[in-house]
Amino acid sequence: MTIDQLRRRIDELDERLVELLNERATCALQIGEIKQALGLEIYQPERESHVLGHVREHGRATRGPLGPEALTRLFERIIDEARRLERESAHMPGQGATPKTDTAAKD
Amino acid sequence: MTIDQLRRRIDELDERLVELLNERATCALQIGEIKQALGLEIYQPERESHVLGHVREHGRATRGPLGPEALTRLFERIIDEARRLERESAHMPGQGATPKTDTAAKD
Repeated sequence: MTIDQLRRRIDELDERLVELLNERATCALQIGEIKQALGLEIYQPERESHVLGHVREHGRATRGPLGPEALTRLFERIIDEARRLERESAHMPGQGATPKTDTAAKD
Repeated sequence: MTIDQLRRRIDELDERLVELLNERATCALQIGEIKQALGLEIYQPERESHVLGHVREHGRATRGPLGPEALTRLFERIIDEARRLERESAHMPGQGATPKTDTAAKD
């Protein structure tokens, strides 16, 4: 493949990544709502450990070029963004699991 | 859905994310190989701007919850890991686009 073809493939992969990351964030927000209703703490370190262990294991099984350290850094950022949305959502009672995105801000 | 069901869905999404991130990294490594063969610079800021603009646009079209700032932070990390792999690959002549993962390191 040429550089242009590879870049087009990356653009396609990025669109799918955006969709999956958004679906993941929606699930995380729904969990945040349930936790809030039950009075549970948003930050649950044992769940975070599970998520990171799970992606490292899947990365090993699929033999990607991304090793466990790279996957850990990537998913720490993904978890961090989910937590940020959960906290924003918790501070906007009534907005529930579909808070305004930050579309208006700096873009 | 219950918290357990939502977490199982997140685990499924994470497996797909790992696969797509690995496919993306493989494409980036192939681009790195071509650039190296042609003597081009690995860091091409205009391509990075295109990638970030593209994911923000797709995020807006798919109406997130992840806003443009969150997507920018996530894809800056994704691009950063790709660049790290390209540089590692460039320092391992003969290994080409399939360098050893960092599986052996600290995991």
